[in-house]
Amino acid sequence: MAINVAVIGCGYWGPNLIRNFYENPEVEVSYVCDLMPEKLAKLARRYPTIKLTNSYDEVLKDSKVNAVVIVTPVFTHFKLAKEALLAGKHVLVEKPMCSTSAECHELVALAEEKGLTLMVDHTFVYHGAVRKIKSEIDKGDFGDVVYFDSTRINLGLHQNDVNVVWDLAPHDLATMDYLINSNPVSVHATGASHIGNGIEDIAYLSLTLENGVIAHLNVSWLSPVKIRRILIGGTRKMVVYDDLDPAEKIKIYDKGIKSEEPQTSEGRHERLIQYRIGDMRAPVFDMTEALKAEVEHFVDCIKNKTTPVTDGRAGLRVVKILEAANLSLKTGQPQSLEVAAGKSK
Amino acid sequence: MAINVAVIGCGYWGPNLIRNFYENPEVEVSYVCDLMPEKLAKLARRYPTIKLTNSYDEVLKDSKVNAVVIVTPVFTHFKLAKEALLAGKHVLVEKPMCSTSAECHELVALAEEKGLTLMVDHTFVYHGAVRKIKSEIDKGDFGDVVYFDSTRINLGLHQNDVNVVWDLAPHDLATMDYLINSNPVSVHATGASHIGNGIEDIAYLSLTLENGVIAHLNVSWLSPVKIRRILIGGTRKMVVYDDLDPAEKIKIYDKGIKSEEPQTSEGRHERLIQYRIGDMRAPVFDMTEALKAEVEHFVDCIKNKTTPVTDGRAGLRVVKILEAANLSLKTGQPQSLEVAAGKSK
Amino acid sequence: MAINVAVIGCGYWGPNLIRNFYENPEVEVSYVCDLMPEKLAKLARRYPTIKLTNSYDEVLKDSKVNAVVIVTPVFTHFKLAKEALLAGKHVLVEKPMCSTSAECHELVALAEEKGLTLMVDHTFVYHGAVRKIKSEIDKGDFGDVVYFDSTRINLGLHQNDVNVVWDLAPHDLATMDYLINSNPVSVHATGASHIGNGIEDIAYLSLTLENGVIAHLNVSWLSPVKIRRILIGGTRKMVVYDDLDPAEKIKIYDKGIKSEEPQTSEGRHERLIQYRIGDMRAPVFDMTEALKAEVEHFVDCIKNKTTPVTDGRAGLRVVKILEAANLSLKTGQPQSLEVAAGKSK
Amino acid sequence: MAINVAVIGCGYWGPNLIRNFYENPEVEVSYVCDLMPEKLAKLARRYPTIKLTNSYDEVLKDSKVNAVVIVTPVFTHFKLAKEALLAGKHVLVEKPMCSTSAECHELVALAEEKGLTLMVDHTFVYHGAVRKIKSEIDKGDFGDVVYFDSTRINLGLHQNDVNVVWDLAPHDLATMDYLINSNPVSVHATGASHIGNGIEDIAYLSLTLENGVIAHLNVSWLSPVKIRRILIGGTRKMVVYDDLDPAEKIKIYDKGIKSEEPQTSEGRHERLIQYRIGDMRAPVFDMTEALKAEVEHFVDCIKNKTTPVTDGRAGLRVVKILEAANLSLKTGQPQSLEVAAGKSK
Repeated sequence: MAINVAVIGCGYWGPNLIRNFYENPEVEVSYVCDLMPEKLAKLARRYPTIKLTNSYDEVLKDSKVNAVVIVTPVFTHFKLAKEALLAGKHVLVEKPMCSTSAECHELVALAEEKGLTLMVDHTFVYHGAVRKIKSEIDKGDFGDVVYFDSTRINLGLHQNDVNVVWDLAPHDLATMDYLINSNPVSVHATGASHIGNGIEDIAYLSLTLENGVIAHLNVSWLSPVKIRRILIGGTRKMVVYDDLDPAEKIKIYDKGIKSEEPQTSEGRHERLIQYRIGDMRAPVFDMTEALKAEVEHFVDCIKNKTTPVTDGRAGLRVVKILEAANLSLKTGQPQSLEVAAGKSK
Repeated sequence: MAINVAVIGCGYWGPNLIRNFYENPEVEVSYVCDLMPEKLAKLARRYPTIKLTNSYDEVLKDSKVNAVVIVTPVFTHFKLAKEALLAGKHVLVEKPMCSTSAECHELVALAEEKGLTLMVDHTFVYHGAVRKIKSEIDKGDFGDVVYFDSTRINLGLHQNDVNVVWDLAPHDLATMDYLINSNPVSVHATGASHIGNGIEDIAYLSLTLENGVIAHLNVSWLSPVKIRRILIGGTRKMVVYDDLDPAEKIKIYDKGIKSEEPQTSEGRHERLIQYRIGDMRAPVFDMTEALKAEVEHFVDCIKNKTTPVTDGRAGLRVVKILEAANLSLKTGQPQSLEVAAGKSK
Repeated sequence: MAINVAVIGCGYWGPNLIRNFYENPEVEVSYVCDLMPEKLAKLARRYPTIKLTNSYDEVLKDSKVNAVVIVTPVFTHFKLAKEALLAGKHVLVEKPMCSTSAECHELVALAEEKGLTLMVDHTFVYHGAVRKIKSEIDKGDFGDVVYFDSTRINLGLHQNDVNVVWDLAPHDLATMDYLINSNPVSVHATGASHIGNGIEDIAYLSLTLENGVIAHLNVSWLSPVKIRRILIGGTRKMVVYDDLDPAEKIKIYDKGIKSEEPQTSEGRHERLIQYRIGDMRAPVFDMTEALKAEVEHFVDCIKNKTTPVTDGRAGLRVVKILEAANLSLKTGQPQSLEVAAGKSK
Repeated sequence: MAINVAVIGCGYWGPNLIRNFYENPEVEVSYVCDLMPEKLAKLARRYPTIKLTNSYDEVLKDSKVNAVVIVTPVFTHFKLAKEALLAGKHVLVEKPMCSTSAECHELVALAEEKGLTLMVDHTFVYHGAVRKIKSEIDKGDFGDVVYFDSTRINLGLHQNDVNVVWDLAPHDLATMDYLINSNPVSVHATGASHIGNGIEDIAYLSLTLENGVIAHLNVSWLSPVKIRRILIGGTRKMVVYDDLDPAEKIKIYDKGIKSEEPQTSEGRHERLIQYRIGDMRAPVFDMTEALKAEVEHFVDCIKNKTTPVTDGRAGLRVVKILEAANLSLKTGQPQSLEVAAGKSK
């Protein structure tokens, strides 16, 4: 039987989720809900069979609806998701999961209590390229990962309610959370606001993870060029994931460095450093649209009562880092992160 | 009459300076001095007329020598430059100028006292691309500069005596010092060492300048790919300087953002943000090799007793930032920089 | 009143036309017709309001249908278009227009006789980038165009009924026809087939136009990399149109060459050649999807009874070149093209 | 004992050869000869130990001189090389070897008669990237080579004595001659001249080789962008050699195509085409400067009396193609090439 889905919010990102749920053969999209009638109107032509409404109540009261997909501004996520869970609906919520980690905690607990699927739209985790990198890391092909360095910059879109850290960094933090099985212990963030509203449009985050990996994120709404690039350095191999490269998004470099302190009985005590520079390989990977895979995963998790890869705990882990980063931005000081007792996976 | 020059140190970078001094028609290169005979031997075939020596004393005692070019490890700069100035020689010293700002101060004072030219090899300041960007900024074409973001990463060359900040960041700090007429008031740095010697091979620097500009530097010896890119954002235009682009190193984007708080008598108080997206222009610029222009400038400054663009004070400003960055790396805390009373230019 | 449209053929390209017609507010898509039921089935979910049929007769007999869009294999174009015109329908036909120029002639005459709109889907003519280049050429900014050089290569998709010239070259020939107001007088083509079916999968076309411009096309289904690039050289400026560049599809180079024979009374009679190397400019252009603009143009032409930019005569001009190229491939000899008495524009 | 070398001609390319011979430890450069005193003057400072002369006679009469390196305009190659061989000197001659194949034949015969080394400066054959590709082809890794497609375009340098085919195509023809062990049986060329001197500055060559491989060359002095790219298609792998890519000059694609005619007892007789799309690999290769390797090879061949890889016969094979291409340009007709009885290797 088809999963009956309602999508809440049809602004910038919503239509992509609507399209992917609409085309999933195991799903029936029954509602799209938005407060702005002009946004709904645009959908009428394309999806004549979907009910368009501005009443969230109507959606929640409809017992045919199995799952609610929340694609609204961040500050509304908690309230909408909580109501949906209380109404017995499974929930997929846009990233970042909530405005505070306390809210995330509450949703995680509520979903567990109700036995409902709670999943966060960490889209990149479902991207074939990221999955390919994950499988190479897990095979041990890279050796130990030692750094994670991402750049996600372009011009706009400036948000009115969240800064660039909350807008863009979740993509990289969720990707890192998925690829590297370790939590940050400290975060330092710097940034600046340039349009007079006090909302940072450029920011830099430096993190240290429990396992010693250092991570750095460069996020900006004020760059003339668009860059979407992650470098991951391992002790054996290094990878560049350039999401904008039309042909070779993943490049794996057989490059490394070896250092030894020679046992000279006498003379200069010089460290010998050797570079290994081998071939580069650009592997093929599954080209399925990430959102399509994500929608399939959500449906599977509901059907089989399994835990999503990007469950509420993953959403919580990301929001904790965002909170700490925001505090660091405000105080100018590095922030420790209480280390989570464990990851859900 | 030709300027008589001795070059001290012929390791990695020295031969480039030797070649450019050798080919300058107003210069005679009389000595190359190095402690390693095998390095000198390599030069014998190519420069049969230059005296090769391992005695710095011999060089300083030769009254024909007008200027000394110091291209040795950083920790030796101060001693060698001081002796040269005391011996009445003009000095060009490799970046970074010295190991401490105190040493820089002493050299600046000594050179002024002696009336000698003291110049630091901040090569990029003499690069046609950087000069072109400077002229566009000075014309006011970019509006006010609001950010400076550089990435200078590649695999190696790991140094044994200085970390990646002291090795790579001087290029970007000197370029920034030249392009943006303002000093940093605070620096925060994070980094890590991966080869067991405690010397950072990846580092990130965040700076705030007196005039409010934020700057960020990403430097690494541990990247599988080589990137040499500086983004500069102005209120009217933004520029990308990609030193590795064979065809278009400078790209000037006619892009900007305007934000206004609309005077709605009622209703939602929403900030309106407008993006201006115009043409990109890649200007031509002087393609002269930077070192050639730098050598000519050094010779001119000696002949005309004028102050070099990259004088000792510029070298000092860069070293002050490096010192603060190192302290931040060690303490994990942001460091304030005493604001210099003024720049020499 | 809405234009009522039927789309015939929903293989590889058809769905793009269906989507664009479907979303055009002045159009109602009433039918999609295809012989393969499995292809139709895929559309049912997405377009529940469109009638799906395998009977072309049914479509032509429906008097509500104003226009027929033919997106079927080339060899069927003539028959389907002719029947549609005879049934009083306007026609948009996929490129290349027909299998022979004689067929094109017949359709052009029939459409004129019937007073119906006959348009060919030369998509690139409706691309913002091509329109921008056209406007720069027409302003005289490039000087006289002297060459046109295109490369359109990638791996696949091998066709069973036409060779790579008929499949890929129409894009470039139509673009050239639009940008440069002159007809070819001769064509030479070389090529080869590599999969044992005698159908060329690599080909090179050299053309000379009436106005002296030389053109060259490199088309291939057997390249490991995808290239979509057109170079156009003018006496004052030169342009590169790289359709795969995500950021700067058009680059206009202020480059040129001047040659003069100096009047030396004696001595070496050497031609002096001077290169002008100025800035490069990447202009912004209308980013509307080409098919969207094309559909709007088709609708406008029907409503206002105006001649499409890519009318049947444009389709005919392209097919004439394809015919000559095929003959050249077969004979190994250059082929003259009877120069058309004039262009329709 | 060192090989004593005289370099004849120090225009654009000569200085590169002078530098590489000068730095070879087994060579002594005794003379540089040129008719233009201002060109010689530039060398005096850099190479104070080399005799500079405008007398070729002086060079040939000096019995210490073992080898002559001819880097002069093409039309002088034959006369200069012949005189050198007659004077008992080994000869390295710039490409293309001579103005006619008859001249090449005569030099080949003369060198063999005299037992002297005659080598042509087909530089790319000594490039690490080309050597790497050769080794992969020879290992059979690519399967059978089926096409060779090169693009070598940029702005200038227009020559006064030869057209763009004679100037640029030798690089690609020599590379092809080296990589693919087969001679052309026919050539077709088109081109045009744009500066009023009748010398083609754009040309396209299509060749068919004995073994069925098709080759195509696109050469131009009138392109706003510089492209140096060769595509080679094999039945198992395909390679792109982009000489301007700073990081990955060689990319080997594990891509291929399989076609079969299915034995359907009834129904549509459709060819099934399957694409294999695997990883891309960018192999490391020897980064030695090509000219350095070439100079070493020349020295080795002289010392060991072995035949150079790019001997006079290789030079002859290239000139034969150039002659045929020129004839095709003039007549507009494809030209057959008498198939050589065999290659020298």
